[in-house]
Amino acid sequence: MRFSRLFAPTKKESPADAEIPSHKLLTRAGFIRKVASGLYDILPLGTRVILKVEKIVREEMNSAGAQEVILPIMHPSELWQESGRWDVYGKEMIKFKDRHERDYALGPTAEEVITDLVRKEVKSYKDLPLNLYQIGRKFRDEIRPRFGLMRAREFIMKDAYSFHTSDEDAEREYWNMYETYSRIFKRMGLEFKAVLADTGEIGGNFSHEFLVIADTGESKLVYCEKCGYAASTEKAAQRRPQVPEGRATKFKEVEKVHTPRIRRIEEVSEFLKVPQEDILKLLVYVVDGKPVAVAIRGDREVEETKLKNAFRAKEVRLATDEEIEEFTGQPKGYLSPVNLSIPVYADYSVIPMVNFVAGAGEEDYHLKNVNWGRDFEVKDFIDVSEVRSGEPCPECGAPLVQKRGIEVGHIFKLGTKYSQAMGATFVDEDGQEKPMVMGCYGIGITRVMAAAVEQNHDENGIVWPFEIAPFEVIVIPTNVKKDEIRSLAEDIYENLKREGFDVLIDDRNARPGFKFKDADLIGIPFQVIVGKRAPEGIVELKVRKSGERFEVEASKVGEKIRELLNSEV
Amino acid sequence: MRFSRLFAPTKKESPADAEIPSHKLLTRAGFIRKVASGLYDILPLGTRVILKVEKIVREEMNSAGAQEVILPIMHPSELWQESGRWDVYGKEMIKFKDRHERDYALGPTAEEVITDLVRKEVKSYKDLPLNLYQIGRKFRDEIRPRFGLMRAREFIMKDAYSFHTSDEDAEREYWNMYETYSRIFKRMGLEFKAVLADTGEIGGNFSHEFLVIADTGESKLVYCEKCGYAASTEKAAQRRPQVPEGRATKFKEVEKVHTPRIRRIEEVSEFLKVPQEDILKLLVYVVDGKPVAVAIRGDREVEETKLKNAFRAKEVRLATDEEIEEFTGQPKGYLSPVNLSIPVYADYSVIPMVNFVAGAGEEDYHLKNVNWGRDFEVKDFIDVSEVRSGEPCPECGAPLVQKRGIEVGHIFKLGTKYSQAMGATFVDEDGQEKPMVMGCYGIGITRVMAAAVEQNHDENGIVWPFEIAPFEVIVIPTNVKKDEIRSLAEDIYENLKREGFDVLIDDRNARPGFKFKDADLIGIPFQVIVGKRAPEGIVELKVRKSGERFEVEASKVGEKIRELLNSEV
Repeated sequence: MRFSRLFAPTKKESPADAEIPSHKLLTRAGFIRKVASGLYDILPLGTRVILKVEKIVREEMNSAGAQEVILPIMHPSELWQESGRWDVYGKEMIKFKDRHERDYALGPTAEEVITDLVRKEVKSYKDLPLNLYQIGRKFRDEIRPRFGLMRAREFIMKDAYSFHTSDEDAEREYWNMYETYSRIFKRMGLEFKAVLADTGEIGGNFSHEFLVIADTGESKLVYCEKCGYAASTEKAAQRRPQVPEGRATKFKEVEKVHTPRIRRIEEVSEFLKVPQEDILKLLVYVVDGKPVAVAIRGDREVEETKLKNAFRAKEVRLATDEEIEEFTGQPKGYLSPVNLSIPVYADYSVIPMVNFVAGAGEEDYHLKNVNWGRDFEVKDFIDVSEVRSGEPCPECGAPLVQKRGIEVGHIFKLGTKYSQAMGATFVDEDGQEKPMVMGCYGIGITRVMAAAVEQNHDENGIVWPFEIAPFEVIVIPTNVKKDEIRSLAEDIYENLKREGFDVLIDDRNARPGFKFKDADLIGIPFQVIVGKRAPEGIVELKVRKSGERFEVEASKVGEKIRELLNSEV
Repeated sequence: MRFSRLFAPTKKESPADAEIPSHKLLTRAGFIRKVASGLYDILPLGTRVILKVEKIVREEMNSAGAQEVILPIMHPSELWQESGRWDVYGKEMIKFKDRHERDYALGPTAEEVITDLVRKEVKSYKDLPLNLYQIGRKFRDEIRPRFGLMRAREFIMKDAYSFHTSDEDAEREYWNMYETYSRIFKRMGLEFKAVLADTGEIGGNFSHEFLVIADTGESKLVYCEKCGYAASTEKAAQRRPQVPEGRATKFKEVEKVHTPRIRRIEEVSEFLKVPQEDILKLLVYVVDGKPVAVAIRGDREVEETKLKNAFRAKEVRLATDEEIEEFTGQPKGYLSPVNLSIPVYADYSVIPMVNFVAGAGEEDYHLKNVNWGRDFEVKDFIDVSEVRSGEPCPECGAPLVQKRGIEVGHIFKLGTKYSQAMGATFVDEDGQEKPMVMGCYGIGITRVMAAAVEQNHDENGIVWPFEIAPFEVIVIPTNVKKDEIRSLAEDIYENLKREGFDVLIDDRNARPGFKFKDADLIGIPFQVIVGKRAPEGIVELKVRKSGERFEVEASKVGEKIRELLNSEV
């Protein structure tokens, strides 16, 4: 491909609404353009990346035994009504009527459509297992689309659905997909972690997220370098601490102290010269409509997904200031667990606490030397705090590491949720009719492109992993008006193409600095700079990622690139 | 791929609503399944065909210099309002509101979205020409979806849009696309014709349709085997006949004859013993609201698209019986051009007519020996009849051939319709700001699959062209329980894969007749039947299309297939 013919409008400025590197860089480097809120054109460079991502996904899914299908985007409401999700999916699902006033949705996910297909066509255990996938457009009407491709309203997903005769077979396929996803993201050259995850709205009983590690990620994960445990912080378990031996013998007498206008934990800590770990934080939540007090160690944060799961609740939210007063009769900022009218649930972090500080239940006062068990009842100890770096691994006790990541894949063992709701049954070997056991497996294709950029960029632009780069090599003649330079560059371009590389030549009549800037911004892994030493047949090979430069004989550029690629692995 | 794992649910019966072979066979052979009216799941076999079709299209478009992009399916209404098409596109366009009550359409075509992109990014003649294409889902809410994939509400299209500095350059690209499309359909192994076509709602000033020849096609075309002229019958021109020399000298006296209850041309012809060519058919049309009489030779039919274009009208329709009475004061079936109160336009076919029969303007009477010019005025001679087999080619006069075809591609020279409406301008070399000149080029990807089946099938099933077949070869062991048969079949399967063929092995434990039926139905071009002579290492190679069978040494199957493929070309 010739740069002079490539539609890659690069820009100096980032779009005003861009908050994260991938949104800024993909726009500046001419990979995407915004059409409207949450809607993007993917330009030729971006499309090349997407097609490479899709190719890897397709190859690995096929070789794992899955079969590709193409399902409609328009989903008839009847199917969603059968599964019970038509009314519960919420405003993220785009609904519309056709010319005959029948209801449809733009598919945000395809459990209903695929289950409908399979229940009609599969009758016997002989036709199972089955793993069907599609690669295509999905729609979610985000209330506030942002971060470019990261949270768009229209995006490309690979979604796969598997059907099985038994739970064991569904689990076998789950791990088959786990391995397949690991191969996929590895082939893409991305640093990622597969972590235990919450199952969320999709439902089911087991799930892993695949996160691309990046500081800008919206998700947090912890992992153990010793035993390999890895989990989303929405799911990561705290190791339950022991109650300290002879705890009651250490109890001191409760003391009421004046703490005027001192409310927040940090203020209390500073004012009373007490570390945050010795202060009890008390929060009032509304759990499926009922008020509940949650106690947690002062330096910890409640992870709301864990809270929701601890109560098997549909909805949890913090109570408003008015609700707190109404439910407890106490002022916010000075809430006390002592004599509280609503039940107190305490996070595991509270178990080892002795003689701690808590609110006094009245304005401007706190209590010292409070102890659970003596001064108030804990209804139950629950695991609801966010696990952080340094905390013990729940499996082996070694210190965990917390990082941020971007969710690019998610696998679920669904069980029989959809097959039971929609009557997707089969006749088993024993003649019995049973519901199929299902799994589902998604990869955000457009998201992978954005996540790759979040993980791989520097101050000059994008640094594409080789396997998903829009081009693998760019040949840059520094001056196309000089015959020796231009013709050597053209020769190298042709040779590299013949050797099987995906090559771009910057044949534009422009200053070298301008071309170098574009090459760095676009992020092509290898730059072949044809300049001053062209008459000798010597060119410069620059590695975009490391910045390394090598003087190479023109005829040996391909060889050198392959050598560098091999040494990288 | 193993048949035992392939999700290809074949059926003995066709769906009740299937009217044409492709709908029946694609359903029976397990390529598609209906989800709802006009919406289909494309199963693994169908998806394999679609991916092969897409690959050919992509390769040829890229090598023709076009660049692939991915545009959103959700189109903001603002863009369609700018082009003026939001209100005129009609009910075929699916419209909906997002959660913020903003209007969107599901793109039926993408002129607006692409023009919006290009006007923002292209400012100079230096950035032109540009040809951008996408392959993706399109939506048209057909009032009566039918014929399976042929007229579905959701379908896959390749749509390309080009932008140019001049009309000449747009025309150069038009012919580039013409050649590209010809290569594409040729590579797919389809018999097709590129025909001059009407531009329809897309607008523009020049257009060709690519029709796959098939008796079941909805479109009609004529072509000249001598000079190569080819046109859709909606567009095909009649050669304008000469007025016969000394015409007036042949005129006879008008004679009124009693024709009780004789109204239709065939009845009049039989009753009066006059050939249909000597009877004038008179029709009343409403052209953009105004009544007009159209005279045509009795054996000809009015082609309404030609009529619409002859009047440069937005809408033409036949008048109702009541309107005919109201406009002319004459009874339907006996309409006379003589003393008619509305203008008479006559098709070219009327020019040579002399002493013809026409209605008498009163119930139960006709006139003989009527002559235009003497008995009534022709306001204008226009070319509005459908051209048929045997009529002279408008270019060279040789007899034309009429066939039916299925539209699978359409190319348009759009001119500046969209660029002017949407302000897509560039600064030319001379410093002047000018509107870009555009072209657009579509291929119906899912339609290609259906059209290929319409053209290539027999009583046993589909007969896929090699290039777009779901598999190229199927290996059929007649009895998988016999080791010698099974293991030879497996060897051949592995060898053919190694040789680069796309192979399916029917490893199912089933009767040979059952397997043969499925193989024929699915339509894989080559069948390798491993049966009785397996112990000798001899297998049978059956060509699906011709039914030819060859006894071949197991090790030479691939060679023989290649030989047959080469001899076919």
